[in-house]
Amino acid sequence: MSRTVRFARAGGPEVLQFVDEPVRAPLGGQVRIKVKAIGINRAESMWRTDQYIEPVQLPAGLGYEAAGVVDAVGADVVSFAPGDEVNVIPSFSMNQYFTYGEMIVVPEYAVTRHPKSLSFAEAASVWMMFVTAYGALIEDAKVTGGDYVVVPAASSSVGLAAIQIANYAGATSIAVTRHADKRQKLLDAGAAHVVVTDETDLVEEIMRITAGKGARVAFDPVGGPNFAKLISALSFQGIAYLYGALDERATTLPVLEMIAKMISVKAHNIWLTSGDPVRRQAAVEFVLKGLESGALKPVIDRTFPFDEIVDAHRYLETNGQFGKIVVTV
Amino acid sequence: MSRTVRFARAGGPEVLQFVDEPVRAPLGGQVRIKVKAIGINRAESMWRTDQYIEPVQLPAGLGYEAAGVVDAVGADVVSFAPGDEVNVIPSFSMNQYFTYGEMIVVPEYAVTRHPKSLSFAEAASVWMMFVTAYGALIEDAKVTGGDYVVVPAASSSVGLAAIQIANYAGATSIAVTRHADKRQKLLDAGAAHVVVTDETDLVEEIMRITAGKGARVAFDPVGGPNFAKLISALSFQGIAYLYGALDERATTLPVLEMIAKMISVKAHNIWLTSGDPVRRQAAVEFVLKGLESGALKPVIDRTFPFDEIVDAHRYLETNGQFGKIVVTV
Repeated sequence: MSRTVRFARAGGPEVLQFVDEPVRAPLGGQVRIKVKAIGINRAESMWRTDQYIEPVQLPAGLGYEAAGVVDAVGADVVSFAPGDEVNVIPSFSMNQYFTYGEMIVVPEYAVTRHPKSLSFAEAASVWMMFVTAYGALIEDAKVTGGDYVVVPAASSSVGLAAIQIANYAGATSIAVTRHADKRQKLLDAGAAHVVVTDETDLVEEIMRITAGKGARVAFDPVGGPNFAKLISALSFQGIAYLYGALDERATTLPVLEMIAKMISVKAHNIWLTSGDPVRRQAAVEFVLKGLESGALKPVIDRTFPFDEIVDAHRYLETNGQFGKIVVTV
Repeated sequence: MSRTVRFARAGGPEVLQFVDEPVRAPLGGQVRIKVKAIGINRAESMWRTDQYIEPVQLPAGLGYEAAGVVDAVGADVVSFAPGDEVNVIPSFSMNQYFTYGEMIVVPEYAVTRHPKSLSFAEAASVWMMFVTAYGALIEDAKVTGGDYVVVPAASSSVGLAAIQIANYAGATSIAVTRHADKRQKLLDAGAAHVVVTDETDLVEEIMRITAGKGARVAFDPVGGPNFAKLISALSFQGIAYLYGALDERATTLPVLEMIAKMISVKAHNIWLTSGDPVRRQAAVEFVLKGLESGALKPVIDRTFPFDEIVDAHRYLETNGQFGKIVVTV
């Protein structure tokens, strides 16, 4: 049997339940993995409340990331064999596959080799954050030396990944955080600049940092009323990526200002990269190279045992963490 | 002397005044043109009220488009000589140059040869509308067969240009208009489909036309509360160009829906195309070829004599026209 997390109705963390399910044989192109660690994402919290980008089909499983050991493979699997250490990359619908379980079955295209330098907990934490940030900053915006990259909600795992990737690409990272208590942690995490919005005006401060030019890229999971300020902080032909809606208030555009500066707002998620075989492969190689060189590093805020999955979700929703939450199995 | 339109304070059409100014010699790279016709644009109306994308420096001239005959050239001008029939392409700040005058001086880069098949009035009408639509639909979106292009405010000059350019590129144009009385005119003007928002639901109707897929491109000068509907009518990875703010109410984004569909909102104006020598040249060639083939055609709603410039602006602001307003000198 495999202990699996499921929910039969949408709601708060308490709807998550452990269910003992028979271990099933992987079909054709599927891989069965004995899970060692699971990365916890905001996507799964939105999924649990049925407010995610796709309607949930109940009763549902959940989870996008995991690290573990291949236990069995389907007849059509070519790249993996039992005993291989592997990671799961978010590249499927949670209505079809999920990772919150002792023994999971996922499609081969979502499986990649485990980076030797990382622990299972670390490996379960890196793919969502780095591939999401890579898709916007490297694949699409092609950030490079001379670019400034503004990162709101900088203490989130994807925010910290964006700081690392901007630095890795030679750009200048500008972390945005509400409270001064995170300033030093963000500098230690690699942010070239930190703007504390409790203390300074976001636009003025970014204009000061960029010598009046504005930043070419913003990478924002927040939206809401502050999104217009972010646009004001962009340069001519700047791009604001919007990959979340943490602020549920209205996200209103400063239209004429955008037209004058020819700003683009691009809604972003990981699927554009992870859903395409060629792009996914390029992303995996980029992240592996970064991890090997030490330019990219996991940032784990806290680890919970599998039994405490409900607490892990509760903790996620306090929005107080610095980096990733991981569950060990 | 040259009779020139100026305004000393921002305001309604009545602030426009005729001033007799000495004819000045063109400097270095400048061309002096005896004006025969002037194209009237909403940009100039926003400029006059000082609500345009750049603050106005008073007392100001105005005007982006004109057709006429070269009268004199500066020492550095290489491509034009007195007697040449030419057009002015919007590619400068109205704080520096303008076209509302009997005798105007503009930079050589803003001058192009007059298309032989067009009258002066027609030639004064085509550049803003076709180059603006070309920049979004051809240069950026690269629309082609199989694409659906949604065009709100379809009766405007740029809207009609977008319909023609979408058709010319092999795409399917969907004109959007509020009132049923413009339906037949829009079909006659080339729209493959017309959605009348007084009568039908925009999203449902576009989903019906596109067999549930949504349109890949929207090209919108309106914004406001209906912009979210336009986004709902887009396909996966659709692009909404926003090149005006005719609806001054808040333009609010449906963030999660955008993330699910990975929608881009791109603020657009003509400068990206007309401000770059290589892009401008490509645009001019595209438009000339379209005009020569008959695929692109001027659409003039009404012509005013130069004396009635104030009336021309008043008429523009009724938003009732179908195509371009031109002033003849």
